[in-house]
Amino acid sequence: MFLIALFAGGWQFGLFALLGTVVATLTAAVLGVSWPERIRPGLEGFNGTLVGVALVLYLDVRWMTVALVIGGAIAASVLTSALNVLLTPYNLPTFTAPFCMVTSVAVIGGPAFSRVWAGHASTPPPSAAAPGTAMTWTYFWQGTLNGIGQVFFQNKWYVGLIFLAGLFIAGWVTGLVALVSSLIGLLTGWVLGAQAADLGAGLYGYNSVLTGLALFGTFLAISPVSAGYAAVGAVTAAGLTAGVANVFDVVGGHTLTWPFVLVSWVFLAAVPMFGKLRRAG
Amino acid sequence: MFLIALFAGGWQFGLFALLGTVVATLTAAVLGVSWPERIRPGLEGFNGTLVGVALVLYLDVRWMTVALVIGGAIAASVLTSALNVLLTPYNLPTFTAPFCMVTSVAVIGGPAFSRVWAGHASTPPPSAAAPGTAMTWTYFWQGTLNGIGQVFFQNKWYVGLIFLAGLFIAGWVTGLVALVSSLIGLLTGWVLGAQAADLGAGLYGYNSVLTGLALFGTFLAISPVSAGYAAVGAVTAAGLTAGVANVFDVVGGHTLTWPFVLVSWVFLAAVPMFGKLRRAG
Amino acid sequence: MFLIALFAGGWQFGLFALLGTVVATLTAAVLGVSWPERIRPGLEGFNGTLVGVALVLYLDVRWMTVALVIGGAIAASVLTSALNVLLTPYNLPTFTAPFCMVTSVAVIGGPAFSRVWAGHASTPPPSAAAPGTAMTWTYFWQGTLNGIGQVFFQNKWYVGLIFLAGLFIAGWVTGLVALVSSLIGLLTGWVLGAQAADLGAGLYGYNSVLTGLALFGTFLAISPVSAGYAAVGAVTAAGLTAGVANVFDVVGGHTLTWPFVLVSWVFLAAVPMFGKLRRAG
Repeated sequence: MFLIALFAGGWQFGLFALLGTVVATLTAAVLGVSWPERIRPGLEGFNGTLVGVALVLYLDVRWMTVALVIGGAIAASVLTSALNVLLTPYNLPTFTAPFCMVTSVAVIGGPAFSRVWAGHASTPPPSAAAPGTAMTWTYFWQGTLNGIGQVFFQNKWYVGLIFLAGLFIAGWVTGLVALVSSLIGLLTGWVLGAQAADLGAGLYGYNSVLTGLALFGTFLAISPVSAGYAAVGAVTAAGLTAGVANVFDVVGGHTLTWPFVLVSWVFLAAVPMFGKLRRAG
Repeated sequence: MFLIALFAGGWQFGLFALLGTVVATLTAAVLGVSWPERIRPGLEGFNGTLVGVALVLYLDVRWMTVALVIGGAIAASVLTSALNVLLTPYNLPTFTAPFCMVTSVAVIGGPAFSRVWAGHASTPPPSAAAPGTAMTWTYFWQGTLNGIGQVFFQNKWYVGLIFLAGLFIAGWVTGLVALVSSLIGLLTGWVLGAQAADLGAGLYGYNSVLTGLALFGTFLAISPVSAGYAAVGAVTAAGLTAGVANVFDVVGGHTLTWPFVLVSWVFLAAVPMFGKLRRAG
Repeated sequence: MFLIALFAGGWQFGLFALLGTVVATLTAAVLGVSWPERIRPGLEGFNGTLVGVALVLYLDVRWMTVALVIGGAIAASVLTSALNVLLTPYNLPTFTAPFCMVTSVAVIGGPAFSRVWAGHASTPPPSAAAPGTAMTWTYFWQGTLNGIGQVFFQNKWYVGLIFLAGLFIAGWVTGLVALVSSLIGLLTGWVLGAQAADLGAGLYGYNSVLTGLALFGTFLAISPVSAGYAAVGAVTAAGLTAGVANVFDVVGGHTLTWPFVLVSWVFLAAVPMFGKLRRAG
């Protein structure tokens, strides 16, 4: 389902996603990671998937990008295992942190290498072409759907719609949480006065979507308090987006899903102190 | 006592400090943090206090600032619990890290939001108006007192004096350690050749004050070796101040109490290796 | 042997290296670090050594540099103990992290202090004088030897040769691993399209040398899989070099051995997940 949506966004996304997934999974298998616990459920592959999609987006379709996706997926696989060892004592998952680390290093270091970066202009945010904070109805509904599509770097509203359909098929609660979280992220950005074109592209939504899904149902037991906790988390992720973007702007990096990773780690790590919240499962 | 000093520095500091304290404490209570162990001793509130003071200083008195202080105090409360879980195995306190994190994110991300930042000029350091490294007697004695007042962002010497009086009432050792530490920070900056106006504003003192108080008496048992250890910590905190300030300068953040937090964590974490030092209590 | 090589690179390197080593070791002894376990094997001194060499390189021979090396070596000694406490649960060594932290803080904060920085121009990379990515035979063989010399900041090929001789005397496997790792780093930079003059100075080699030595033989048991794992680590360290350099460029820091420290921590932390790899000893 996700692969269909990726191919709908462009054939190169599907192809490089596949490459990243296969390399990361193979690396884990060669190094002897447990098959039934980690590899079969796909836990070893999805950071490779994201590395593939991100690098083809930022570095174009070229043979050097193929080599970088292979190297990046291997590094992501080792990082996944390292973070697993470090975070298990605190009962925290790795989320998409390996992907964020590998991609940040690649795009920050890239300009130093003539064969990696040659002739590739940086992608300005949507607001560069259409500045202003005036909200329109089109920005509003497209932004909500794009907030879901941006999870996989897609900024076409119908790709977001396919993802949403897939989430609703997986369970109507999951779909609803994704929709509401995307809305929370968009509204947070709006109230604070973010650029409307960026909101319309879903840039303030996707980290809220991931945070909402992680904190409500997936890792925390469902309850009225945990619903409020997840909503606060979604607001925080949208607010953190601007801070992360401004820091990366200086060194030439991208926001990626860092806000989701950081907010979800903090909100899950705090749970043992909170008598009103329980971990799921 | 501290609240009186804050109101003496300006009514808005006292009011927003109160707001931050109440919101942070309420958040902890709603989420079920233990009342006798954490909330009653005020451990859940003081990072909210600092968030309130810092945000009104950097963002002015406006309704948006009220909303941000509420959001920031909630985030600081969650961060406090998260850091507690992560640091307890190493027997380290959270210090003011939650405040530093929330405020850094707010001021770095702020410029992206038109409703947060509109028309607010950044505050240049005192040395911008009066450059030079020539020390005067006025800079010297005011800088020593300001080093204590800057703990709560106050740069009027009589506010520092009220704080100092409060510390001496709490115990004459505490007051003496604060005074000596502020002096150590100022002298360290002076010897290294820092701008005299910044020294006079207490910018090299407040992290040394906090570090000195943390390492001498509060968390380490008092002994001749621990006195030397705390003095080295105070020097290190003053030296680190310039490094942190230069990094934040690039992305638009502020030094806050990061040097104190980092130095105190490192110096306390090292204690189990040192046969000549013992933890207090 | 290393000291001879350092004096060969310039008398000031040898002298400040000695100062840093003595101060760091003395600090550890005064604070009561265990003598037979840590001080006698030299584990407490080598970060002080590196601080001495780095600060004299970046800040010139002056009395202020002597004071900074003493302060830096004390801070490095405390950091070594702190990291030891934090990393022991994960069975990770501190590597050269204390040195990297102290030196980064010193060179980033330095420009704020007139007595530290006065009249000292920053050192541009070799590629600034000779831009271009065309490889020559001289760049190639000198770069391989310099990759070994740069471990101690030396960019004269015969200093690298003395180090290499020392490593071969310590054991021919050690010498071979260093040579091959330096070659891997240089080739990685070349394939990605790095500046040839930087490759010739060994800037892409020294982190690979350290990573190769750490991952093959020293901390991991020797096997065909661990040989491949160490080679991947050496490639990763060379790739990470550009990312770290670009980040530090913005705030005025230096790459140092950060890539080695970060890559080796990640690759060693991941080992418990990998059935095909075993820790040495």
